[in-house]
Amino acid sequence: MSIEKFQYSQADREAIYRVIEERRDMRHFSGGKVKEDTLLKLLKAAHHGPSVGYMQPWRFIRITKPELRQSIHSMVNKERLLTADALGSRSDEFMKLKLEGILECAELLVVFLTENRQQHILGRRTMPEMDLASSACAIQNLWLAARAEGLGMGWVSLFDPAELATLLRLPKGSSPIGIFCLGPVDNFYDKPMLESTGWDTRKNLQDLIYENTWSDI
Amino acid sequence: MSIEKFQYSQADREAIYRVIEERRDMRHFSGGKVKEDTLLKLLKAAHHGPSVGYMQPWRFIRITKPELRQSIHSMVNKERLLTADALGSRSDEFMKLKLEGILECAELLVVFLTENRQQHILGRRTMPEMDLASSACAIQNLWLAARAEGLGMGWVSLFDPAELATLLRLPKGSSPIGIFCLGPVDNFYDKPMLESTGWDTRKNLQDLIYENTWSDI
Repeated sequence: MSIEKFQYSQADREAIYRVIEERRDMRHFSGGKVKEDTLLKLLKAAHHGPSVGYMQPWRFIRITKPELRQSIHSMVNKERLLTADALGSRSDEFMKLKLEGILECAELLVVFLTENRQQHILGRRTMPEMDLASSACAIQNLWLAARAEGLGMGWVSLFDPAELATLLRLPKGSSPIGIFCLGPVDNFYDKPMLESTGWDTRKNLQDLIYENTWSDI
Repeated sequence: MSIEKFQYSQADREAIYRVIEERRDMRHFSGGKVKEDTLLKLLKAAHHGPSVGYMQPWRFIRITKPELRQSIHSMVNKERLLTADALGSRSDEFMKLKLEGILECAELLVVFLTENRQQHILGRRTMPEMDLASSACAIQNLWLAARAEGLGMGWVSLFDPAELATLLRLPKGSSPIGIFCLGPVDNFYDKPMLESTGWDTRKNLQDLIYENTWSDI
């Protein structure tokens, strides 16, 4: 039987389910460093992500200049205040959340979608956003590998993409999709931070599964 | 040191890197079945994906009616022909590729983004597409878990999303993001199929990494 032939050992499967359950979106970092060869392994894991039409749209920027890190932090803080305004009644609750660790994390990365993506039509004629989907899969690889290495990562999307593109002199037609804080942490959260803080609850999986159609009407 | 404290054992890390490297976007399936409890484990892995503002936007439809599977196959085949037209000079090469296994796979799933997503503002005020990014991360979890279980999966994005939403009676404001073929396979591809067939080559990782800015000008 082909399933058994290709199935990983129980120990290996357990490691894979464990990393999926223990990965967290981290906002608290303890400084330190990420070894060069570890960082490269993580980026290689990302580069093994799936990509629509094999376009490999992901590009990585490693932020090493302290003043650039500071500018990115200011940009995110500006968007944090604008988001607080937009949240209305939940504004105060929101302002108490720690949503990034840009100044404390060992490594700061920005991921963007390359320019000239319109030439890739396979799987994207009606679904052009599959370039983002592919890159998010790649980032999930990186995230899981980081957790296995004992490193935390957080995906920050509190920014104006046009402003970030200008700051990093990205090519015309490219799109930044996230600012990533990566590095050693003092502790991994037991649960998603937005669950522990009461921002929202984990949904019941059974409520998210349908058969054949969403509506039977 | 916190890194060592949280780092997984070498065997566990190797399993995680291995599944990341061995996962493939599969289009050839060998029929058979996926056990109910395995399917649930895979969906649970997906549900442990990260989500912007903890919105958990992913919804899963399991297609069990043969006539619905047939309709989805016809829909994908129609888009395949339209894509071939749009590809111009690569049309013949494209038409030789096998791009889905809808009629052969053990399980057919559709994933869609829930309706009423506009109420989730945290991390999405300027980046509304983060709902798709979160769901793609969730799908990558499922994909890796499936590979570890010895099951292949393929993400098909050759369809008109409005047409698929109508067919599955999705709620207004929701968005289907993929048709997923899942099940036993005779073999996993050694390399991505679009690499083996010469559609495109794997890019050099070093060419995708920049420091501080894309352009030094």
